[in-house]
Amino acid sequence: MKRSSVKDLLQSDKFLQEVHVKGWVRTFRSNRFIALNDGSTINNIQCVVDFENTDETLLKRINTGAAVSIQGTLVESQGKGQTVEVQVKNLEILGDSNPDEYPIQPKKHSLEFLRENAHLRVRTNTFSAVMRLRSALSFAVHQYFQQNGFYYVNTPIITGSDAEGAGEMFKVTQFEANKAPVNEEGEIDYSKDFFGKETNLTVSGQLEGETYAMALGKIYTFGPTFRAENSNTTRHLAEFWMIEPEVAFNDLDANMDLSEDFIKYVLQYVLDNCKDDLAFLDNRLAQEEKTKPQAQRSEMGLIEKLRFVVDNNFKRVSYTEAIDILRNSKPNKKKKFQFPVNEWGVDLQSEHERYLVEKHFKCPVILFDYPANIKAFYMRLNEDGKTVRAMDVLFPGIGEMVGGSEREERLDVLKEKMAELNIPEEELWWYLDTRKFGTAVHSGFGLGFERLVLFATGMSNIRDVIPFPRTPQNAEF
Amino acid sequence: MKRSSVKDLLQSDKFLQEVHVKGWVRTFRSNRFIALNDGSTINNIQCVVDFENTDETLLKRINTGAAVSIQGTLVESQGKGQTVEVQVKNLEILGDSNPDEYPIQPKKHSLEFLRENAHLRVRTNTFSAVMRLRSALSFAVHQYFQQNGFYYVNTPIITGSDAEGAGEMFKVTQFEANKAPVNEEGEIDYSKDFFGKETNLTVSGQLEGETYAMALGKIYTFGPTFRAENSNTTRHLAEFWMIEPEVAFNDLDANMDLSEDFIKYVLQYVLDNCKDDLAFLDNRLAQEEKTKPQAQRSEMGLIEKLRFVVDNNFKRVSYTEAIDILRNSKPNKKKKFQFPVNEWGVDLQSEHERYLVEKHFKCPVILFDYPANIKAFYMRLNEDGKTVRAMDVLFPGIGEMVGGSEREERLDVLKEKMAELNIPEEELWWYLDTRKFGTAVHSGFGLGFERLVLFATGMSNIRDVIPFPRTPQNAEF
Repeated sequence: MKRSSVKDLLQSDKFLQEVHVKGWVRTFRSNRFIALNDGSTINNIQCVVDFENTDETLLKRINTGAAVSIQGTLVESQGKGQTVEVQVKNLEILGDSNPDEYPIQPKKHSLEFLRENAHLRVRTNTFSAVMRLRSALSFAVHQYFQQNGFYYVNTPIITGSDAEGAGEMFKVTQFEANKAPVNEEGEIDYSKDFFGKETNLTVSGQLEGETYAMALGKIYTFGPTFRAENSNTTRHLAEFWMIEPEVAFNDLDANMDLSEDFIKYVLQYVLDNCKDDLAFLDNRLAQEEKTKPQAQRSEMGLIEKLRFVVDNNFKRVSYTEAIDILRNSKPNKKKKFQFPVNEWGVDLQSEHERYLVEKHFKCPVILFDYPANIKAFYMRLNEDGKTVRAMDVLFPGIGEMVGGSEREERLDVLKEKMAELNIPEEELWWYLDTRKFGTAVHSGFGLGFERLVLFATGMSNIRDVIPFPRTPQNAEF
Repeated sequence: MKRSSVKDLLQSDKFLQEVHVKGWVRTFRSNRFIALNDGSTINNIQCVVDFENTDETLLKRINTGAAVSIQGTLVESQGKGQTVEVQVKNLEILGDSNPDEYPIQPKKHSLEFLRENAHLRVRTNTFSAVMRLRSALSFAVHQYFQQNGFYYVNTPIITGSDAEGAGEMFKVTQFEANKAPVNEEGEIDYSKDFFGKETNLTVSGQLEGETYAMALGKIYTFGPTFRAENSNTTRHLAEFWMIEPEVAFNDLDANMDLSEDFIKYVLQYVLDNCKDDLAFLDNRLAQEEKTKPQAQRSEMGLIEKLRFVVDNNFKRVSYTEAIDILRNSKPNKKKKFQFPVNEWGVDLQSEHERYLVEKHFKCPVILFDYPANIKAFYMRLNEDGKTVRAMDVLFPGIGEMVGGSEREERLDVLKEKMAELNIPEEELWWYLDTRKFGTAVHSGFGLGFERLVLFATGMSNIRDVIPFPRTPQNAEF
């Protein structure tokens, strides 16, 4: 008999049909009711065992975590909370699960404990919901871009250029530790390493992506990126997935439009396609919130928050306006900010971004036109000579969701800026070629995928929205 | 006026409308006809310049590679090869392209030359077609799995385990070369490295993927993987993208079904969605074939070959049958094989696979049930005690497209095998947990994405189907 998924059975109304289902026992109560899950949905199907006619030793093996194969009849359920159930005719234990040893028991485990069991945590409701949602969001990302004429580009992970400047890089080598060959001057002889040069893990595919946008028009990347930074926070990972669209002929306004349209699309996608998982996560977050003091509780539930973002315009504010708002804000005047905002030109700290988004505007905010000297070399200089066409999309509870810019398309201005920052032209000869041959206005942005998943799931630690998190001192599994 | 893409304009039948288009000049002939391309399609739109009323200096700047903005009227074309064209009213040069310096001239460049200009080669017909097709294939991969209830899982790129055994690994470190700290015994003190242990770039996400399949049921990965192997061939890359589905409760037969169904789906997808690019690549391959001696020419054209794969069953043959066929084959008897096939148990070489696929069966072949001792530790041992439930899908012109297996789900057998191969259990405690708690039959496979792109595009060197190839002594860009 063909095996059915739990999801299909729960949606079926063909009662009295013979069915075959395989999955893992979530709970077994009253020696009779198995809550069976196979990962296809957050919901379990109830399988009712005829315990009076079932061997005692078999019943004892129906433990949480055991893999079972069940054949039986699909019937309308008499119990609460489900419409169908399976009357078990035949039950086979595929794989036992010793209750004295199995770490994932049917009780509340701490997220910290589950992180140490990252290979098993996806067997819980919370993590299976998070990971299904992550999968749906990934697909929404591809679907959005493909439907809008973008081409997916796989920029290199191992890179020979370290001029991107987005952060500290991991080294990639084939040399044995402390046994790298040296040349006559006593310097490391990288010509003997695998790639014949020093190589690192990429911090961004943007520069390579630009070369593709200047040929294919609209492109996006979606791949892993890396930061060798000792940031032990709830918002940073050493390895994370980044989405980087880049569009020829787009100016900064079009870039802002794209980022807003994109985020709304993918959130709408999960609202439409992940109803059960979202309902669970919405409820989970509501329970979490109840444990907090009233003042710290979120005003909106998870689903409400997603709808709010989809339905409302992001507020667009220039850096200069933002500085004015911050300078005149209560926390600034009352010296509540750790970094007081006194003058134009300072870099915005997390506390400032949070104030703008969570207290002042209470919605996603796009800040644009930042001072040139706090932003990257490739950003388009404005006519004022002191600001660049940069933008950051800030989200409540998350902070920076997107960082992007119109790129400096003028060869002479770009070269000048690189010289100023001591970025050697030989390193980026190929990048400069895009300005040398058929240059044009173009823009793009980067979005850290895990921050999007964090927002969409209502989880609070970024380590809980990626299967096997990599952070300082942690690369288990 | 809103800008239109070249693709949209070419499909339009609203004549006499005012249009605005931006792109790059592919050719400019008779001081009058611009072939304009913006990457949205392989086809150019003809833009007709009123040269008698256009400034001479402007005309001189309309060079191959220049970025231009054109406003004009869309009209039915009088010329051959296109149905519409743009009568130019206003032309602006956005970015010049000096014909004495621009490397990509409208003539045939060698693939080797273009590889050295990987940042510009996507501006050619061939590479833009390849890369659009690659993008479409990527999307087809996601669509296939998502429509069939699989969840996308991002397994880690940086891994602390080196027990996967799929090949040589690159080291990832934050230590300065030759300045790694050592402990009192004089050994490298990895506890001081970023992750507190030795780390490498992943060669496969399979083991981590299995832990997710044993919770979510059906999963797939699609991400970069790495091999630090000095293979300078047309089929190997040091960095490539791999697709790895893994399904709980699937046996090897179901695994073979999945691989065949999957490959047919994604090839059908490009047949349906990439007609223009495929037509170009089909023609390109036909031209290439003409330069070969008759005997070496392919019997089928590119599109024909894709249709053939989609329409016919893959031939399923056991290793034992394959050995019989090879042993009795003409090249073996005439000692034409470099590695003669004399006895059961030998590993199959590329020449043997090619003989089976290209000469004997003339279709994709799935070989299964290989000798245990030439396959990986995690493969399910058959009842005969000497073969394992492994499978390879072999493609004409490509060789191994897929490698997969039913996994050894029995804890005791798996442990025994690991002991035999000196794989320490402490390294893979989490992998063993999947067999300890709720184990079940499960299967999966790995497919090297670039080999699929190679097959679908008819290109012959794997370096030409990935944007920025990484190979020994090469990590430029």
